[in-house]
Amino acid sequence: MLKTTILRTKKPRLKNPILIEGLPGVGHVGKLVAEHLVEELGAKKIMEIYSPHFPPQVIVEDDGTIRLVRNEIYAFKSKTGNDLLLLVGDHQSTTTEGHYELCGVFLDIAEEFKVKRIYALGGYGVGQLVENESVLGAANTIELVRELKEYGVEFRANEPGGGIVGASGLLLGLGAMRGIDAACLMGVTSGYLVDPKSAQAVLKVLSKILKIDVDMHALSERASEMEKIVAKLREMEEGKTPVSSEEDLRYIG
Amino acid sequence: MLKTTILRTKKPRLKNPILIEGLPGVGHVGKLVAEHLVEELGAKKIMEIYSPHFPPQVIVEDDGTIRLVRNEIYAFKSKTGNDLLLLVGDHQSTTTEGHYELCGVFLDIAEEFKVKRIYALGGYGVGQLVENESVLGAANTIELVRELKEYGVEFRANEPGGGIVGASGLLLGLGAMRGIDAACLMGVTSGYLVDPKSAQAVLKVLSKILKIDVDMHALSERASEMEKIVAKLREMEEGKTPVSSEEDLRYIG
Amino acid sequence: MLKTTILRTKKPRLKNPILIEGLPGVGHVGKLVAEHLVEELGAKKIMEIYSPHFPPQVIVEDDGTIRLVRNEIYAFKSKTGNDLLLLVGDHQSTTTEGHYELCGVFLDIAEEFKVKRIYALGGYGVGQLVENESVLGAANTIELVRELKEYGVEFRANEPGGGIVGASGLLLGLGAMRGIDAACLMGVTSGYLVDPKSAQAVLKVLSKILKIDVDMHALSERASEMEKIVAKLREMEEGKTPVSSEEDLRYIG
Amino acid sequence: MLKTTILRTKKPRLKNPILIEGLPGVGHVGKLVAEHLVEELGAKKIMEIYSPHFPPQVIVEDDGTIRLVRNEIYAFKSKTGNDLLLLVGDHQSTTTEGHYELCGVFLDIAEEFKVKRIYALGGYGVGQLVENESVLGAANTIELVRELKEYGVEFRANEPGGGIVGASGLLLGLGAMRGIDAACLMGVTSGYLVDPKSAQAVLKVLSKILKIDVDMHALSERASEMEKIVAKLREMEEGKTPVSSEEDLRYIG
Repeated sequence: MLKTTILRTKKPRLKNPILIEGLPGVGHVGKLVAEHLVEELGAKKIMEIYSPHFPPQVIVEDDGTIRLVRNEIYAFKSKTGNDLLLLVGDHQSTTTEGHYELCGVFLDIAEEFKVKRIYALGGYGVGQLVENESVLGAANTIELVRELKEYGVEFRANEPGGGIVGASGLLLGLGAMRGIDAACLMGVTSGYLVDPKSAQAVLKVLSKILKIDVDMHALSERASEMEKIVAKLREMEEGKTPVSSEEDLRYIG
Repeated sequence: MLKTTILRTKKPRLKNPILIEGLPGVGHVGKLVAEHLVEELGAKKIMEIYSPHFPPQVIVEDDGTIRLVRNEIYAFKSKTGNDLLLLVGDHQSTTTEGHYELCGVFLDIAEEFKVKRIYALGGYGVGQLVENESVLGAANTIELVRELKEYGVEFRANEPGGGIVGASGLLLGLGAMRGIDAACLMGVTSGYLVDPKSAQAVLKVLSKILKIDVDMHALSERASEMEKIVAKLREMEEGKTPVSSEEDLRYIG
Repeated sequence: MLKTTILRTKKPRLKNPILIEGLPGVGHVGKLVAEHLVEELGAKKIMEIYSPHFPPQVIVEDDGTIRLVRNEIYAFKSKTGNDLLLLVGDHQSTTTEGHYELCGVFLDIAEEFKVKRIYALGGYGVGQLVENESVLGAANTIELVRELKEYGVEFRANEPGGGIVGASGLLLGLGAMRGIDAACLMGVTSGYLVDPKSAQAVLKVLSKILKIDVDMHALSERASEMEKIVAKLREMEEGKTPVSSEEDLRYIG
Repeated sequence: MLKTTILRTKKPRLKNPILIEGLPGVGHVGKLVAEHLVEELGAKKIMEIYSPHFPPQVIVEDDGTIRLVRNEIYAFKSKTGNDLLLLVGDHQSTTTEGHYELCGVFLDIAEEFKVKRIYALGGYGVGQLVENESVLGAANTIELVRELKEYGVEFRANEPGGGIVGASGLLLGLGAMRGIDAACLMGVTSGYLVDPKSAQAVLKVLSKILKIDVDMHALSERASEMEKIVAKLREMEEGKTPVSSEEDLRYIG
């Protein structure tokens, strides 16, 4: 395999589809949201994308079988609003040029389905535990910025300071060149841990935007499990102080 | 040399050949097994594979002559069962894209000889010294998983957690796309040392699968040499306590 | 996007244009000068250059919109002397080959406009705070070296010792091959901080060379802000000594 | 410049030329020898080789002019024996693939001049200061190994253990594929410092092999300068002990 290769099922007919990207990234926020959507909506896989820009690696499944690392596109036919295309996967490109090539492939697929709007999902790592979930936004048109503000998406000058790196960033940047409106929804997260709580916050905003009803049970369960782990981590950290003050007391006494 | 290049002898006629891959990797387990097979079976070299994806390096032989780093294919004509193609070499690709290209070349060769089955040999590093040898498996069809379980190959959910990286992984993943059944046999090993004992374990399983009789003498000799080294390492580590307590005694006395 | 791509406005007619390059580099000296010139002269953007050799990244603007990282060419029509082409941007190439490719693109543009002279602006990092600003030079013809000496540009044997790396260096080196005279003006700078004071020194020399009058207000304001920061950094560092000598006094007393 | 490019003078007629390679490497041994030969023999430059695989960099000459990093071929017409082609340069390739491409270019040039023999010069770093200079060899035919032994070149089993990396290695390895005899002469050196003394040892052997008389004055001067530096380094290192024992004496006294 010398080139990026797409295996595809028979092409489904989709009504004004919106593309949702949730590839791995900071806190795996985008990945958690997109994979939750695929599962809850019962979306159907229509494409597998393989590329020499992905790591030379296979995933071992629970039954001992393997599969090559890949990206996938799922389709969801909505009864009420826009149909959805969902882009998920194991990895992003390992090379700079590969990022540009793969996002070109993703946008070719978007154009093939006449996609007019893309939501790229991700996390924004702030380097410390986050108390109040919030969703930061960026978009490739000012109209889309205004629209998203109405859904509670926050826009802060100079954030994210380092710009948006990888597939999410390029889908907005290269999307603009093809005239496709695209926004990035970034769950604010520590950046240290997989963050299902931040994913919940992103999913809440996204389901309002898409006007779809998604059961959040699975995600909120993972979030409370994660909260327990975080609580334990904090306890352990704070625990140091009482222990050492006890020692002080003993010493003084 | 701008492209991967194959030098070949006259093509041998092979009966239902099985491809065995043993390129360098974790604990050099796969390499030890495949090179042992080449030697013990008296397999004949039929191809040398050179590539700009290998390091820009020559190996210096004991007599002062050199040869470019390469991969090699050996052929073994069996009197009883399947003939064998054995893939061995000095290095794997140094680049991500090179891994995909080279595995494509290996699979082209497999198809040329109408190979229906591939065994990729490797090591699975667990980060600590291993007491009881075992062989972990992964395969690109569920039938092959079942078949291998009967030979004592172990399949554990979530192992190897990081998937299988490099040529062994890609031969399974890209092999599946070409309809070639392929399995990976991984000797469980510390990952810190070249491990002929783990190689023995893999060879035992493999020779049962292939229904061939291989003299393990050379490999078991290397394994007992290695055991002595490991025993010494352990002694030295454990030795620290008695030595320092002796010093304590002298100090007290 | 698999190749470097140029988006361009209608081609302006330029009179004997000189190309000024100010891409990011040591102390951002070149970038500060070139962007200051674009702003003060009111130069007009005529090209945007996008490339898979740039990082896969978008910049988020203050209003929440994004744009792909890029290089830009601005044109300034002078009433008195040479017209100017100004090359500015967010990033240089991330790969070695990309540097050669992009500088080839820049020189194609220079040839398209019949550019006869290039000034590549940069910083020369000396590893310590610089008291007296100076501008170090290098050029691809000995005549140009002589000419620049008359403007106070310094040429020191063995400096910069490591040569000139990146776009500035290649514009001189590859420019020579196309018969375009090119010089590099390097503001001497610590290399640790963005250095608008060094940029001022470069701009003074450059405006004399170009015989243009540029308001330096904005740049000198940034420079005095930066001087305050540096003064504070020094105070903090020097502050350590009085504090420790006070401790000494207490100790002696 | 997207490809390796050769600028050349009118092709000289050469009698049975031998190619000598002395690109930068361990201890710059090969570079010192080859550049010394170019200078002492008054060899003439016949080619400049530029490549996007070299660092994106220009060298600043003492007069303030620059030149792109490059490799060069010099020709020397001998009155007595074989003519010489000398390959020298600022850098080797920065990428693995580039090494293979550039050595292909070098060998194309060798074939163009009907070169039958190549000597690749380099250093073999042993990680400690070397008392007695020696020259280690490797060759791409056993006949050449035998021939070199008669000139005092040493061949040791398992050395160099890591093989020969870079242009020197590939000229031997890829040379063999084109039927060109090639040997590597490696001056044993610490690997920490530029080593003109090791270069002298290599040059002595090489001039015997080539049956040429080369004035070693310049090289031996550099070598004695370097010896002074090394002697000083040793003094400083050994000096630590007496100084600290003096302190001990004062303390006791």
